Amino acid sequence: MHKKLFIPGPIEVREDVLEKMSAPMIGHRSKDASKLQKDISDKLRKVFYTENEILLSTSSGSGLMEGAVRCCTKKKAAVFSIGSFGDRWHEMAVSNGVEADLFKSEPGNITTPQMVEEALSTGEYDLVTITHNETSTGVMNPIEEISKVMKKYPDIIFCVDTVSSAGGTKIEVDRLDIDICITSSQKALGLPPGLAICTISDRAVEKARTVKNRGLYFDLVQLYDTVKKKDYQYPSTPNLSLMFALDYQLDRILDEGLDNRFARHQEMASYTREWAKKNFELFPEEEHASVTLTTVKNTRGISVKDLNTELGKRGYAISNGYGSLKEKTFRIAHMADLTMGDVKDLLSSIDDILSIS
Amino acid sequence: MHKKLFIPGPIEVREDVLEKMSAPMIGHRSKDASKLQKDISDKLRKVFYTENEILLSTSSGSGLMEGAVRCCTKKKAAVFSIGSFGDRWHEMAVSNGVEADLFKSEPGNITTPQMVEEALSTGEYDLVTITHNETSTGVMNPIEEISKVMKKYPDIIFCVDTVSSAGGTKIEVDRLDIDICITSSQKALGLPPGLAICTISDRAVEKARTVKNRGLYFDLVQLYDTVKKKDYQYPSTPNLSLMFALDYQLDRILDEGLDNRFARHQEMASYTREWAKKNFELFPEEEHASVTLTTVKNTRGISVKDLNTELGKRGYAISNGYGSLKEKTFRIAHMADLTMGDVKDLLSSIDDILSIS
Repeated sequence: MHKKLFIPGPIEVREDVLEKMSAPMIGHRSKDASKLQKDISDKLRKVFYTENEILLSTSSGSGLMEGAVRCCTKKKAAVFSIGSFGDRWHEMAVSNGVEADLFKSEPGNITTPQMVEEALSTGEYDLVTITHNETSTGVMNPIEEISKVMKKYPDIIFCVDTVSSAGGTKIEVDRLDIDICITSSQKALGLPPGLAICTISDRAVEKARTVKNRGLYFDLVQLYDTVKKKDYQYPSTPNLSLMFALDYQLDRILDEGLDNRFARHQEMASYTREWAKKNFELFPEEEHASVTLTTVKNTRGISVKDLNTELGKRGYAISNGYGSLKEKTFRIAHMADLTMGDVKDLLSSIDDILSIS
Repeated sequence: MHKKLFIPGPIEVREDVLEKMSAPMIGHRSKDASKLQKDISDKLRKVFYTENEILLSTSSGSGLMEGAVRCCTKKKAAVFSIGSFGDRWHEMAVSNGVEADLFKSEPGNITTPQMVEEALSTGEYDLVTITHNETSTGVMNPIEEISKVMKKYPDIIFCVDTVSSAGGTKIEVDRLDIDICITSSQKALGLPPGLAICTISDRAVEKARTVKNRGLYFDLVQLYDTVKKKDYQYPSTPNLSLMFALDYQLDRILDEGLDNRFARHQEMASYTREWAKKNFELFPEEEHASVTLTTVKNTRGISVKDLNTELGKRGYAISNGYGSLKEKTFRIAHMADLTMGDVKDLLSSIDDILSIS
């Protein structure tokens, strides 16, 4: 039996979107391939509220995160982490010989604008990475406030991991002056995994041109130049199936209306949080709780593993806590094309299994 | 109208294989995901005649080629090139700060065992890269003879790009002592693009553990260790859709029988070569002509572009020459699940368009 996925990626993908994955192949050097990538880029610019160029990468989001920190750091990167995915960004820098300092917040806490201000005022850094939405803890960083600090340092490249938030909440790349905003197909955009996406500012590209040892596959300059010189094509053979599905899904997203989509995510988040507060506790402070997934503190001491097994019999899957938070928390993702009806059905099932009335 | 693809990737994918791309998502940390990757690995070991571990990468084949030369070179890499894809392997090394020398053969020629012997006898190199099948020229390297040279140098890591040959011709990884044998989904294996595959020997893994600055996404050690420690899982979210399709397609390949599959490729190649020799000329020496694609010398001075336009109207696509060989050659791929009937239909159409009788 298929389990409807309430895990933070891969997410439940609509049947009509899955069907597009089966479209027959086309040549990746054809005019049709150029048109496909250009159409996708135009639509993604709307989702990200940007006029910047869009780069696609046949990889998970991690690939472009690694490319960003590697290609655009000359002095040192300030990596702000609020959990596992922020820590991984630091590991990406270090494993590529990129100088980087890690500024960690306690699990469940945010990166404060003060932390960013303090680090940048040292003058040591020329690139900042921020996790917008941390799926290991269910925390969403105050990107608006952090952006205000970043605006005081216009020479510092501002990279944001929006892997698990883009498409589920408004991220205004141009207004927030984000240089590289990265996401991935298998989260709030509502597609299967295998394709990473980023927006990139001209100044990030120009900066990268001056950085040596950028590698090839995740060289953002090569990706950018191929888009420009080869009329929206890709250096190597791209994942065409996901591009067909993404093109279709972006039409659906824009048809739903971005504001409606974001409001639906907010409504699912609010409902799940109320349920969590009534029956357990929220893991993060409510004002920093993610809009795409809710991390619940296991105050009842239930077996999350057993709960998930029972849910599986009813056709649902949620996530246990991440890493050291396993069994201490559990995570309910409410993103992409899930509806309030889906969320209510899931939470009723949990109530029923745990005999919560 | 869909054009049946006789280009060297993406190739024509069977409808039943495409359908598998639409399977619903599963969690990538689930037991089902482990089983999927393990099943795929077991089947791929048969295709590659190896007991080595199999690594999957959500990327094009280029990603694992870059990972191989970066992770396993400590001294210097000897990169043998017979065309664009060999040149690119050198670029991958250089762009990662890996010391590498490029040994180029003229377009249409092979890498001779003597060239390899001469280079290795200097003692300068600890890694060799060979292109098995070069789609820019239609040449297949004498991997058997090159392997005999490599066996004299058991400490040198032997990497082979079989991106456009694996699944179309026999490559006996263990007998040839290939340390890292790389391929990609969208060629002779008969799937859409987006997934890279390699076999990896234990000594390549142990060597890589001693190399610094391996990066993260294409760190073969991390991929290997995740397979081992996490029961055939993947460090980041993998392309599950292609894994579903690959698992199915490998059953089809093994059901066809590897020897039958290779014989079918040989038959399509022989037929196309005879046609080429009768009406044009072969671009490479016949003894080194590829079994998965035929590069034809445009001795009639036809417009390849116009030919392809006319073929497009009849529902076919072939490839123009690559780079500087454009219009001077054209390329007909005959790989994956194309049949003798398909090849005959295509060549009859070309005869008809060019009024060859």
